[in-house]
Order: sequence, then C-alpha cells, then structure tokens
Amino acid sequence: MGNGDWMAGDPIRTSEDYLASLRGRDLDVYLFGKKVDEPIDHPIIRPSVNALAATYDLASNDPYLASAVSPFTGERVNRFLHITGTVDDVVDQNRMQRQLGQSTGTCFQRCVGMDAINALFSLTFDIDASHGTAYHNRFVIWLTEMQRLNVVIGGAMTDVKGDRSKGPSGQADPDLYLRVVERRPDGVVVRGAKAHQTGAVNSHWMLVMPTARLTESDRDYAIVGAVPVEAAGLTYVYGRQAGDTRSMEGDLDVGNARFAGQESLVIFDDVFIPTDLVFLDGEVEFAAELVDRFTAYHRRSYVCKSGVGDVLIGAAALIADYNGVPKASHIRDKIVEMSHLNETIYGLGIAASHESHQRAAGNWEPDALLANSCKLDVTRYPYELGRLAQDLAGGAVVTLPSEQDFDHPEVGPLLDKYFKGRPDIPTRDRVRVLRLIENMTMGRNAVGYLTESLHGAGSPQAQRIVIERSTDLEHKKRLAADLAGIDGDG
Amino acid sequence: MGNGDWMAGDPIRTSEDYLASLRGRDLDVYLFGKKVDEPIDHPIIRPSVNALAATYDLASNDPYLASAVSPFTGERVNRFLHITGTVDDVVDQNRMQRQLGQSTGTCFQRCVGMDAINALFSLTFDIDASHGTAYHNRFVIWLTEMQRLNVVIGGAMTDVKGDRSKGPSGQADPDLYLRVVERRPDGVVVRGAKAHQTGAVNSHWMLVMPTARLTESDRDYAIVGAVPVEAAGLTYVYGRQAGDTRSMEGDLDVGNARFAGQESLVIFDDVFIPTDLVFLDGEVEFAAELVDRFTAYHRRSYVCKSGVGDVLIGAAALIADYNGVPKASHIRDKIVEMSHLNETIYGLGIAASHESHQRAAGNWEPDALLANSCKLDVTRYPYELGRLAQDLAGGAVVTLPSEQDFDHPEVGPLLDKYFKGRPDIPTRDRVRVLRLIENMTMGRNAVGYLTESLHGAGSPQAQRIVIERSTDLEHKKRLAADLAGIDGDG
Amino acid sequence: MGNGDWMAGDPIRTSEDYLASLRGRDLDVYLFGKKVDEPIDHPIIRPSVNALAATYDLASNDPYLASAVSPFTGERVNRFLHITGTVDDVVDQNRMQRQLGQSTGTCFQRCVGMDAINALFSLTFDIDASHGTAYHNRFVIWLTEMQRLNVVIGGAMTDVKGDRSKGPSGQADPDLYLRVVERRPDGVVVRGAKAHQTGAVNSHWMLVMPTARLTESDRDYAIVGAVPVEAAGLTYVYGRQAGDTRSMEGDLDVGNARFAGQESLVIFDDVFIPTDLVFLDGEVEFAAELVDRFTAYHRRSYVCKSGVGDVLIGAAALIADYNGVPKASHIRDKIVEMSHLNETIYGLGIAASHESHQRAAGNWEPDALLANSCKLDVTRYPYELGRLAQDLAGGAVVTLPSEQDFDHPEVGPLLDKYFKGRPDIPTRDRVRVLRLIENMTMGRNAVGYLTESLHGAGSPQAQRIVIERSTDLEHKKRLAADLAGIDGDG
Amino acid sequence: MGNGDWMAGDPIRTSEDYLASLRGRDLDVYLFGKKVDEPIDHPIIRPSVNALAATYDLASNDPYLASAVSPFTGERVNRFLHITGTVDDVVDQNRMQRQLGQSTGTCFQRCVGMDAINALFSLTFDIDASHGTAYHNRFVIWLTEMQRLNVVIGGAMTDVKGDRSKGPSGQADPDLYLRVVERRPDGVVVRGAKAHQTGAVNSHWMLVMPTARLTESDRDYAIVGAVPVEAAGLTYVYGRQAGDTRSMEGDLDVGNARFAGQESLVIFDDVFIPTDLVFLDGEVEFAAELVDRFTAYHRRSYVCKSGVGDVLIGAAALIADYNGVPKASHIRDKIVEMSHLNETIYGLGIAASHESHQRAAGNWEPDALLANSCKLDVTRYPYELGRLAQDLAGGAVVTLPSEQDFDHPEVGPLLDKYFKGRPDIPTRDRVRVLRLIENMTMGRNAVGYLTESLHGAGSPQAQRIVIERSTDLEHKKRLAADLAGIDGDG
Repeated sequence: MGNGDWMAGDPIRTSEDYLASLRGRDLDVYLFGKKVDEPIDHPIIRPSVNALAATYDLASNDPYLASAVSPFTGERVNRFLHITGTVDDVVDQNRMQRQLGQSTGTCFQRCVGMDAINALFSLTFDIDASHGTAYHNRFVIWLTEMQRLNVVIGGAMTDVKGDRSKGPSGQADPDLYLRVVERRPDGVVVRGAKAHQTGAVNSHWMLVMPTARLTESDRDYAIVGAVPVEAAGLTYVYGRQAGDTRSMEGDLDVGNARFAGQESLVIFDDVFIPTDLVFLDGEVEFAAELVDRFTAYHRRSYVCKSGVGDVLIGAAALIADYNGVPKASHIRDKIVEMSHLNETIYGLGIAASHESHQRAAGNWEPDALLANSCKLDVTRYPYELGRLAQDLAGGAVVTLPSEQDFDHPEVGPLLDKYFKGRPDIPTRDRVRVLRLIENMTMGRNAVGYLTESLHGAGSPQAQRIVIERSTDLEHKKRLAADLAGIDGDG
Repeated sequence: MGNGDWMAGDPIRTSEDYLASLRGRDLDVYLFGKKVDEPIDHPIIRPSVNALAATYDLASNDPYLASAVSPFTGERVNRFLHITGTVDDVVDQNRMQRQLGQSTGTCFQRCVGMDAINALFSLTFDIDASHGTAYHNRFVIWLTEMQRLNVVIGGAMTDVKGDRSKGPSGQADPDLYLRVVERRPDGVVVRGAKAHQTGAVNSHWMLVMPTARLTESDRDYAIVGAVPVEAAGLTYVYGRQAGDTRSMEGDLDVGNARFAGQESLVIFDDVFIPTDLVFLDGEVEFAAELVDRFTAYHRRSYVCKSGVGDVLIGAAALIADYNGVPKASHIRDKIVEMSHLNETIYGLGIAASHESHQRAAGNWEPDALLANSCKLDVTRYPYELGRLAQDLAGGAVVTLPSEQDFDHPEVGPLLDKYFKGRPDIPTRDRVRVLRLIENMTMGRNAVGYLTESLHGAGSPQAQRIVIERSTDLEHKKRLAADLAGIDGDG
Repeated sequence: MGNGDWMAGDPIRTSEDYLASLRGRDLDVYLFGKKVDEPIDHPIIRPSVNALAATYDLASNDPYLASAVSPFTGERVNRFLHITGTVDDVVDQNRMQRQLGQSTGTCFQRCVGMDAINALFSLTFDIDASHGTAYHNRFVIWLTEMQRLNVVIGGAMTDVKGDRSKGPSGQADPDLYLRVVERRPDGVVVRGAKAHQTGAVNSHWMLVMPTARLTESDRDYAIVGAVPVEAAGLTYVYGRQAGDTRSMEGDLDVGNARFAGQESLVIFDDVFIPTDLVFLDGEVEFAAELVDRFTAYHRRSYVCKSGVGDVLIGAAALIADYNGVPKASHIRDKIVEMSHLNETIYGLGIAASHESHQRAAGNWEPDALLANSCKLDVTRYPYELGRLAQDLAGGAVVTLPSEQDFDHPEVGPLLDKYFKGRPDIPTRDRVRVLRLIENMTMGRNAVGYLTESLHGAGSPQAQRIVIERSTDLEHKKRLAADLAGIDGDG
Repeated sequence: MGNGDWMAGDPIRTSEDYLASLRGRDLDVYLFGKKVDEPIDHPIIRPSVNALAATYDLASNDPYLASAVSPFTGERVNRFLHITGTVDDVVDQNRMQRQLGQSTGTCFQRCVGMDAINALFSLTFDIDASHGTAYHNRFVIWLTEMQRLNVVIGGAMTDVKGDRSKGPSGQADPDLYLRVVERRPDGVVVRGAKAHQTGAVNSHWMLVMPTARLTESDRDYAIVGAVPVEAAGLTYVYGRQAGDTRSMEGDLDVGNARFAGQESLVIFDDVFIPTDLVFLDGEVEFAAELVDRFTAYHRRSYVCKSGVGDVLIGAAALIADYNGVPKASHIRDKIVEMSHLNETIYGLGIAASHESHQRAAGNWEPDALLANSCKLDVTRYPYELGRLAQDLAGGAVVTLPSEQDFDHPEVGPLLDKYFKGRPDIPTRDRVRVLRLIENMTMGRNAVGYLTESLHGAGSPQAQRIVIERSTDLEHKKRLAADLAGIDGDG
C-alpha cells in the first residue's frame, strides 16, 4: 500500500496474514544506528509484532469479544476498527483489552487507533455541522475500507514539543509540532515529528492529530489526516527499552520472550496527505475537543494494565509458591492488596465505559470524569503493584546470574543446586518467574506497565486538569451551602 | 402494627405520612438514661428521622430514580423495597444513593433493608431448591405487603459478638449472638442483641439475620426472620455520636442541623417470630452464603459516601472561596484530589452494579470482587477527603467560638469583625461552612462519613477476605507461567 | 500581675502553685456567651489547665528531663523557659514533649512560648547587630524574670488574616492583622486579634509576634512585645471543640476526663505595651526571619504528637486485647504500622534537634529542613494512626450508649451483658478504652491530635515552602549533571 | 593474600592502590558463562569497582568525614574499618554514606563490612563473657591488621535459603544454608552459598555469618569467620542487572557510565577457615543476636539511598529545566515531595545513629526501633521518588533512540532537532539526564536504588518484626488505660 492506491489489497484475516503484510515494506526504520532490513525479523522488534498479532488471534478465537459487525460493511470486523454503536461496544473494548493484557503481559499497541477513529467519527460530524465541511463522509469512506482490509491503524498525536513553556507557534524551531508546510490543490504537505509512537512500525496506517489545545496563531498545526506507514518522507527511529538487548541474547533472561511493546520516533519530512484523507484542517477550535474525546476513550483504555497486572499478580503468587511460603499472612495480604488495586483500575475503566453517552454522530463515548479518574489511578497503582511483586520475589529478582551461567557445565549445576526453592520445583522454573517479574518491573515490559502507564494518554497533570474541569464544583458548593444553612448566593 | 396484624394499615405515600407513622408507637427507646417519649420529637433523634424521610421525598420528586414497578404488586414502589429485575435496577440503586448522600450529607439508613431483601430473595429460593423448604414463597408474600405499605425495613445482622476469638456457640454467654431459645408450634423465640443498628428506631420492620459463617454446633444461631420494630421484647438503646448534644443547643454550631444518622443497640429479650415470618431456620450452611450475597449488594451501596463526599468537596471549595483563595494552585490541586478519590469510590460501586449477574430466583446481584474493592476504598478515601477538607478549612474549623458568643451583644460584633474572611461574605456564612466541615469530619456526621465507612457492611479485613477468595489466583498463575515459558504444571 | 508591676510576685514552684496563680485574675473570658467567673473551675476549661499543670509536675518529678540550669539566673528553671545552650538542650525538649504527650494524651500548651523565646533570643541579637537597637538586652532582662517567676508564656502569632489573598496592609479592615495604632513616649498601643491561641487563658504572659513575611507598607504590623494575660484591653473567646460539652456531663463518655487542649481567640482592643517589653518594632525585614526561626523550633516540637500517638497505639492494642484478638496477624500488622509511622514522626523531630546549629547569640536552633519534614509528616500520619485505631476499635467506638444508660437500673445490666468483650474484662473497661479512642479521633483531643497537627505551626503548604527553599536544588542538579556526564554549566 | 599469610602486604593508601590490589588475583568469577580473566577490566564490572574506589578517594579528600583514628592502630583508618567509639562516629557513618551516594549515584558496597565488624566487635565480647570463649581478642587482632592494610571487607550473611517455610536443618539439601562440614584441629571447613553478595568480587575479605535465628538442631550452621576473597574453594557468579550490557555498548545510553553496584552468588565449596579467624562456632543462641546487632547498624546505613535520592531529585529538576518548565506549580510540588520523602529517610537514619547506646565492649550501636523504621521507609519512598522522577521526565525516558542513532550521519541530526527541549540546551545534555533517570529507575542502578532498598538488610517483613518487638506495647497500654480511667491491671 502506498499513497494513492490505499484501497487496493486483500483483507488480513489471520495473524499469519498480518505477519505477511508487514514483510517487504521498504520502511526507513532505524535501530542501533542501522537501517533495519526487515523489522519483523529483528529479534528486538519481533516480540512487539507478536503482541500486535495477538489482536488478530483473539478476533479469530473469540470473535464475540474481539470483533463486531460494522454498520458500514455489514461484515464482522476487528473490534479495534469498530465504531461503538452501543454501550456494550464500549464496555467490550475494555474486556478485550484486559484479556489481551493477560495474554501478552505487555502493550499490544492497537488501542490508540481504535480510540482515535471513535473520537474522529463524532468530531468530524460535529465540525461538518458547525462549518459545513465534508470531513465526516470522507472519514467514513476511509474507515470502511480500513475495516474491509482489517489493517492496523496507529494514532500519531504526541508532538515532540520542544520548550514546554511555549506552544506550537512559539517554538524557536516551528517544526517541533507537526504542521502544514505546503498546500497543494490535491492535498497538504506536513512536517514535524511524533514522539514515542506506539506500534508505528507494526501498523499500516497512522492518523496524524494535533496534541494540544491550539490558538488562532497555530492554524497550520491544526491538521488531522490519514497517512500510510509506507508513505514517502517518513522515518522511524526505534526507541530503546530497558533491557531491550536481552531479546537478542536467548530465552531465559528475557522474562517474557514472546511479547513486548514498541515505541518509536516518527519523523515526517514533508509528507503529502491527499485531500480525501484530510479530516480536519485549520479548525483550531476543535483541536482541544479532539484531545478531549480521544482521551475520554483512551484514558479508560488503560484497563489493559489490569490485564498486565493479572500476570504480575500471578507471577508474585507463583514465586511465593516456589519459595514455599504461599500461606504466610503477610504474603497473602500483599497479594490481596495487589488484586484490590488492580480491580480498582479495572472497575473505574469499565465504569467509564458503562456510563457512556451518545454523540450526535451516533457513537457512544465513555464518561470523561471516570475515564480520567481511571487513568490517574493507572499512573499510581502499577508502580505499587510492581513494588509489591518485587517484595514477594525477594532480592534474587535483580541478582540472578545469566542464562549462559546456568548452561555452563561446571557452574550450571551449582546454580541449579543453590537457586533451588521448594524441592519439587525445577530451579529454572523459579528463575523464569523471577525473570518475568524483572521484565515487568525493570525490563522491557516495565516500559509499558509502568512508564507508559504514567505518560501514555497524557501525563498525570493532564488527567488532573480534566478532572478539575469535569467536576461540577458549583453544584457541590450549592449542596454544601444548603446543608450548612447558608441562604442566597452563598 | 404489632405481631399478627402486620398486614393491616394504610400505605405510606409521602414523607409526611412517614413522619406520622412513627408517632404513637410505644417503643422502648433509651437515650441518656431515660426512656424517650416520642423519639421523633427528640432533638437528637429528629435529624436522623429527617434523613430517612428524604428517601420518601425523593421517591415523590424523582419517581424514575427512586421508585420502580414491582412485579409483585404491579404498582410503583419505593426503590428501597424493590427487587432488582434488571441490571439497570442495580445501577439505579447507586444513583439514588449518591443523590441522597448529596441531599442529606449523612446516612439515610434505608440501604441495609434494600440489600437484605434482595439477598434473601435469591437465598430463600436456593434454600428451597436445596432443602425443599418453602421460605421463598413466604418471603415474597411478606415483601409484597411491605411494598404495598411502603414501610421502612431495617436489617439486623451485626451481633454483639463478645470474645472475637470465639464463634457463637463458643461464647461464655450464649446470648452474645442472637439465637433461638424456644421453639413453639407457631414460631420461634429469639434472644440476643444486635449492635449499632442503623435507623432501627426510624424503621417499621427488621430482618433478623446471622452475622457470620456458622458451623453445625451453631444451629440455633441460624435464624432469619422479620420482626416488627414494635414487637414485644425489644429494647432500643440509642448510640451516642460525636458532638450529638449540639443538636440540642441551637442551629449554628451543629453544622448540618437538619440531617444525621442513627445507630442503636437493639436487645431481643425473647422476641417471638411467627412461622410465616421465618425465612431460614437451622440451615447453617447458608449463613455464610447469606452474608456473601448481602455484602455483594451492601458493600457497593457505600457509593452513598461519594454523595456525602460531594458535599464535603463543595464545603472545601466554599471555604476556599470565602477565604479569598480559590485559585491558589495547591488548593485547586487538593480539590482535584478529593474529586478523584470520590469518583474512584463511585466508579467502583457502579462498576460492581453494571457487572451484576442474575441469580436463579431472577434478581440481579452486583459483582462481589468489585463491590468489595469499592468498599475497601471506602474504608480509606473518606478519611483522606476529610483530612484534605480540614486542610483547606484552616485551623478555625476546630477553634470557632460558640453560637452564643456570636449572639452576645458585646463579643458578637467583635467575632463578626475578626472571623471575617473575604469582605463580601457574611462572617456567619463562613462560620456555617466551617461548622459543616467540622460536622462531617469530627462531629455527628463524621460517624457516618468516616467510621461507618470503615466498619459498616463489615470491617476492612472482611473485604480483604472476600477479595482474596474472589481473585482467581490459579488463573493468574497460569497466565504468568505461560508468559514466563514454564511448561507443565508449573 | 498587671502592667507595670510584672516583676513582682513569688515564683511558681509546683503545679499547686500554678493552679493557685490562675485564680482571682479578672480575665474577660467568654464561653457559651457568658463571661466565665473563674476559668479554672469551669468543667470545660479545667482539663486544659490540668494538661498545662502537668508541665510543672514533670519538672518536679523528673527535673533532669524537664528543667535546666539557666545561665541568667544560675538556677534550675523549667525547660519550657530555658534558652538552648547545647544541642542536648534542644533534643531534651523533644524527649520532654513526647513524655508529656504520653501522660496527657493531648496538647499541654507550653511549647509555643518555649519556641518563641528561643527564636527571639537570637533574633533580637541579630537585629541589634544590624540596626544598633537594644532589643536583646531588654528581652533577656524580661526573660530572666520570667524564669525566676516560673510562669507560663504563650506565643501569640497567628493573625485572623481576613481575605487570604491579601497581606496585612491590603485588607479592607486594617485590624485583621495585629498592628500598632498609637505610639506614646513610653510604649505602643496595639489592636487586632490572634486566632486559635493555644493555652492563652492558662498562661501568664503572651509574646505578640507577626505571623508572616511583611513588606515596607506593613511597618505598623511589625511589632513584637510581651503582654501580660491580664493586660487591660484583652478579651478571650473560648474556642469550641468537638464533643466539648461531654466534659460537663460526667466521666465515662469523655474518654480522657482529666486532660484536654485549649484554643481561644484573643482580641487586643488597644492594648498598651511599654517600651521595655517591645522586642521588635518596625524592622519589617526581620518578620519572615522570625517566622523561620520560630518554626524551625516549633515544627519539630510536634514530636509531642508521637507521645499522643503512643497513647493511641496503646488504646488500639488494649481494645484488641479486650476483644480477644490481640494475636490476629492483620491486627498486629496494623499496630506495627501505627508504631512505624509514630516513630517516623519522632525520629524526624529529634533528627532536626540533633542536627541543630548555633546562632550568633549562642543558642542552638534545629535544622529547618528536617524540622519542616517532621511537621509535614505530622500533617499526615496522625490521621492514618487515627484511622487504624478506629479500625481496631470496631464500630462500637461511635455507637456506644451514654454513661447514663449504663447507670440505668434496667438497661444498664443489659448493656453490661451485651457490650462484654473478653469474659474476664469488665465491660466498663472496654467502654472506657473505646471512649478514649473516640476522644482522640473524633472528640476533644482529636482537635489537638489531628487538626492541630495539620495547622499548628503552619499548614502543610507552609512546610512545603520551607522545604522547597531549604532544598539545595542547584547542588543536586550538579550531582546529577556530573554523573550523567554533562559538561560545563549544564 | 591467601590463607595463612593474610597479615602480609602493604597497606592500600589511595584508590589507585586499591585498583592495583584487585589485579592479578586468580578469582573464579563467572559472567555470561565465562570465567572472567581480570574482573577489573570487564566493562560490566568496572563501574562497580569505581564505586568502591570512591570510598578511598573520599578518605583522601575528606579525611575528617571518611576516616577516623583507630584505638587499635593509633593511626587514621578508613571509616569503613572503624569501630564506633563515640556517638559522632555512628552519625558520621551516615554523613559519609549520604555523600558517597551523592557522588556515585549507586551502591558503593562497603557498608556491610563496616556494619558487620561493629556488630561482631560487641557480640564476640558478649559471647566470651557468657561462654568463656576467646573470640573477641581474636577478632580484634584480625581487625587491627585489616585496618593497617586498609582493605575492603564484605559481609557474607544471606544464605540461599531454599524452601522458605523451613529452617537450615529442615532443608532437603543441607547445603542451602552455609554450614560446617568438617572440623579439623586447626580450623573448620564450610560449605554452602551466599546469595546476592554486595561487592564480593571487589573485596579482599568476607565475614561469613549466619542469616537467621538458629535452633539447637542448627548447630553446624552457627559459624562466623573471616575468609579471604581469594580462598580456595570459592566461586563467584556475577549477578545480572537490568540493562547491564549497556555498560558494554558505549557511553550515552548507560546513564551513569562511571558507577554501578555489584551483587554475586558466592559458592563455598569446602572452604577452610583457620581457628584464629573463627569468631563464633556453635553458639546458636547468639545467631539471632548477631542479626539484630548487625541490622541495627545496617538498616540505618540505608541513608545512603538519600544520597542517591539527591541525585535523582537533581536529575528531575534538571529535566524540568531542560524542558523549559521548572516553575510550573505541579512540577515544583513534586520536587518538594521528593525532597520531603528523601529527608524523611535521612532524618530517621541519623536519628537512629544519634540515639545510639553503648555496648559492653565499648562501641556505640544505633537505636533498633528507629533504624528499622528508617529501613521500612526505604522500602517505600525510593519507589515513589522514582515514580515522580519518571513523571517529570516525560515519556522520552523510555523511548529515546540509541546512541548509535544519535551518531548516525543522517538520522543523528534529525534526532538532534526533534529531541531538543529548551533551545539553549544541547539535545545530548537532555538525553543524558533522561538516560540517568532511566538508569536509576529501570536500569543498572535501579537495582541498587529500588530493589536493594526493598530487600537489602532484610525485606520489609523483617523490619516489621523488629518494630513489633521493639515497640513497648505494654507501656503504651498502661498509658492508655491510665488516661481512660481504667483501674488495676486493665
């Protein structure tokens, strides 16, 4: 797929199809200072591909959960490409996310696109209503084809931002937020970069969107459009993760050998977007609204972390078993606390989904106050779960020797002897669960489970701002004044 | 109403009817060492009556929210008397609870009964299925009449318990858990006491239930039955609350003059329960199940505290206004935190309700894991909200002079001068909101907002036990083992 | 003692002397709208007098701990009147404070004066050095006499403040901060009010001090002086406390019948301060410095709360005993947590004292960063201790009937039967410890243990400001830049 | 140095001497399945050597802080080898530890030995007094020589433990705790392994000590002795750290290129300890006492983490600077919180040291309750500091491309452009500080700053047990009973 022929091609039906679809694309992907020939075959990249592939497998294995019938195609489409037509659709996104978090133990990278298409579905409708534009129809045409092809859409929102004390048009270098640098009769040319883009290299399309509230002087920065990942002018620089190179070493030390997340910097060096793929252009007053609608979905999408949390709770319980002390009261108490915090995340997320409201365009959108409360808890609790898991793991989680030492003919048997826990458990099983906990709290998947929980979908302060705005303080003041016996305007 | 003629009488239609229904009952209510003539007229008791009366007003003013059509009567009945026929019914309980928390700023005392009838509806059905008994039909007959009469049902569950290291039959004094002391052809006689009974004096009926898991030797303690509040043999000893006597002083220092909660000790001195009002008798193995079903409802009923929290957030915002500093960043940040914690409570509660499952009897019951997670947060967050509210209030919240000082001809004007905050706000309004914060964090309603949040529906450890039991740890261990690459049984 | 003859009189030697010294003073003290004849005999006031008297008893019983040899008098003086001549003197203040917290379970009201004289000792020295004034000598003369008389000095710092968004000279009413309204040849006349003054009615003298940073336009507000509590023009309006009237009821329901704190509003209606009792007048640039030095002492004086915390921990352990479950793991764990938090407060306080530095005047002053860190923890941990104590107490802590009910001939025996915990513990003992927990978490002494912990010596935000200022961020940045390999100015 | 000739050799005077002393030793050190030729030259090991070398540099540069005059040699010796002769000696250990934490940003590995010699100094004295043994003199002879040689002593305490539900003699494999397997006329032979030994490969000697309370049946496990690191029969297997291989890659991505910690498994394959180096043998009842004394020192030695915390606070402040937003109120507030928590750790540590008590042998030992409270906070606060640092860092902390990408001729300049923060700060400086934060929160030094903070010197539950034991609960109960008015034995 390239510019212009994006409607061609056969649908992706299985995870095998998906893997095949990633091959032979001439992407400019850089990793460790080299252009990567075939990203899917790179041992650091492959686990992230596997995680995304799991979304296809789930749709195959549990279509009720992970797909839905599209009103546009009349066909069953992957839920990640579906516009929410009912409250249950919104809730089912959460159920699917928790399950994928459980089966991959990491970020499966497909939520941004799902949440972006839902936000744009209603936003384009409302812009058209307000401005007489024709974005909505364009968007639906494009989305229908995406559903048919069953591709992966990424959402490219986060600009690199430069000096955080200044907005887009206030930067010394105007490119630090993505912007239109040229207008042609058939489309626009954009320049800039999007930071820590989830799963970009594993996607087929990206939705370019502004990252923040814009003012009149930021008009060139007000651009939304769909861009194929293979488009000319795009460069991907792969982000390093803690302990990433262990994926190149072997199996035992990786912790979770099959799955990992992926973030990269995507540089747009004058990328052309044809007019029929432009879904907002210059309507600056809708930029903040887009962020709000997107984050109403995306901040409760972080219930995926409760699925990852399930894995970590399981790992903590497993190591307690292997150490011989699953019944100690303080250990049970810590597992209860982990479970409690994990369910708090999940509960708030699905509460936001259950309490969805319908937009004029017909789709259902989660409750912003609950979604932001969910995400704010996500910026805290996984860190506490991680701390408790390390507590139960014991110090060996950070002092285990390497796989090669375990394989060494002389030292290996000694390690086997001395890292034994409960006599009936193979030492390597004990090592495996310790490495998994390391992976999730200090290794590759700590990136997704911890730091991404903090900053993904916006940093904590962004959630606080929405919570402040969504809290009807005047109503609460009236309640208090009334009970306090304060007359009048108080 | 007394034993035997409990089906007589006109329905209660309004809060005025309700107040009238409380008059002229010859209850043995003790307060400050004296039998109270007419509880409703006692200045300490009256605010608690008002809070309960608010449940009638709400049903009048917002029938959609606070009433429902009963399948038994075909009539619209108060939601507190309704068996949940749909998931929405369960969720609407939460919405109603939050709103009543907002309008009263305290415990309105009617949830225990609502949650108890719902638990017994399914439990009696299942006992009958298991034992061939006829409890369910009896229960429905009784409940139908309760709905018709629109009375208040309290739930009498918490035994006084004596030595907590021993169960019912292990106590030195066998009466420390309520038990059957005599069996007659037409019913049973029970003896014992139920501690801190919410709203007992304001109710018409009580449902007597065991408080804990029972063993074979506790058979006499396995009794469930309906008892009119006026039944012979009942004595009520009113519980003192922090600052309770301010309700006898005047208006300004009370903080929330209209509304308060109510707890009392209810002593059953050989009270007769006729057979047709007995809904469980001796089926010890169902006692724990009853507690579980009841708490699945009742622990998410504590979303009422998010309504009370709304009042406290409003009061905190109001005092910041009156002090002239609503825009200070640290003050706004604390209000955001209060709102966040408050929504976390609410979100988890409605999540439990939205995720209800249907019992064989047909009613819908909240998800136990989420309900218990909700309650466990309730044992923590109101305390933090209270601390933050006191932070915003400033020290005057605990050092204000008395109303009589404010009324004093010489000192009053000086107080008026020196307790002034923002010049355009009357000093007394500032005092009123400070007194409200005191009321909710150290006064009468701190009982309901804080300590009852801790112990009502079971103390924190009780929630932890259910969370432990409801967490499918084996499933989580398998997830972890699978990702860690552990083969076999792990 | 009145104005002019303040050097007369016999020294106070014992707590009996102290009680006698409070009699027969014609103070204008208002409580419940009436002028109180003899405050010491008022049942609400008396417990606060007892708490202060405990400082005299301790000096008698443990002179090594609670007194010191004054370099001014050559005599052993009460430690509350002593200028710190060694680091041990500073640390011993903390040891004494914890012990008094333990023996009274409340605020003993004498720390403000102790901390104020120490701050003024060095401050007056430095003002003189800077301005050629003669404050220090005046101050020492006065203090020497105070030591000889062994009186109680209160510190009057907190202005009522009006609109918190404006400073002293910006208020609509200029009296909302205390100020000089007239200058006479022999002294100054001040007007204003000081809010929530600890132990004012139980003191002999007050040190009037500004409460905040002052600017050039606030010159009239820059006044420090000593004022006898009996001075003409002073009015005291007693602050209400949660559950204060229980002290007028009897014994059982009070929880801590002997001891309580005291706060009042002190109104200065044109009070004259003779020149030889003025210790700062117009040196606005020293106002912030005074607050800083005072709070360096006073914020670590809050280790007294660890003494009160000891009582609460003991009460929690006692109720667990009485309930029969002292060995339950979750109960032991909560007590450990209480102890841990309590020692964290104490440890930080004495760390600040141990790390004292010497001022030019010769006295030793605690480390500001540690003192403020101590206080910031005090704004949090007592609330958590309180919550945990209520957790261990069970719901009865807020639902117990009144003493009169326990005394009732018919109901009393029933209460005795049904509030029994462990069979060998008298029911009333169990009630007593529950009432003590109520007293400390929602009653009179919750004022001192909780809210005063929050706001006394400055609200949390005041501590954060000092912590920010005391943190050498530039040094830390250089450490980080150096390790990160950043050259130059970074 | 080998067995037998351990008193030979020249003293180490400088860090250069120290580095030289490590060369040419024929240690069996395994890393990545290979025996390491010269550990000091291995790029992964070298940063840990550097960290230890910093202890020599500090003694050179600030002898007052990092050395002391030994009463045994009469010479100034490194403080890490000094027996505490005064309270100031104990406190100065903490000051030195914080400073080394600041200058290395990691674990400098020399505290275990310092704390072990201090514990053994008094313990051997007390065993002799109790048993008539001669351990103390032996110990002092050995220690004196250690001081003269100025070597590094490690403490080998933590056994591998096997099944945690069983003690030493209950294990299926008796070697899972280190034990005496043979007694010879001239000494004992030990077998077993010590897990996650800090800085073992960088040390010259190890003190072997039991890890836990022992019973009569564990007599062979009750062994304390000094063992040269080069002793025959020892094998070291190097522990992997998160992101360890980055030290082999280059400079930019490491975060802290110069310094890191070190942990290894030390296997004792029948190692001989001559009698004059045995300091406890079979006195099982002193094992728990040894652990208690050692941890009284070692748990407050974790104030080193406040030095590391200083670096992290500096890094967080630096990235806020580089991002252009150091003045944002929420950012300043988070830095204040970091500083507050960090000082809480430091304050508790030095409080424990200041409150030392003297042992019969003459040395001073920290207060156990405060030391354990310090350590328990250390198991929590660094995690929160880490979370806050990541919050201020923004998402780039886990998504930055590799150094090689920054060096790439085409991609490098684009990264330079797009990772720019404030225009006047070189992009690589911004990258460096982000990599430092990654290093400390998810990389090599997260091992020391986080997980070692959790488990080093014993896991949290071990601290809770000591806190429980050190809390005089009976005294606190009496305080409560007295104030509650409970007579008699209560």
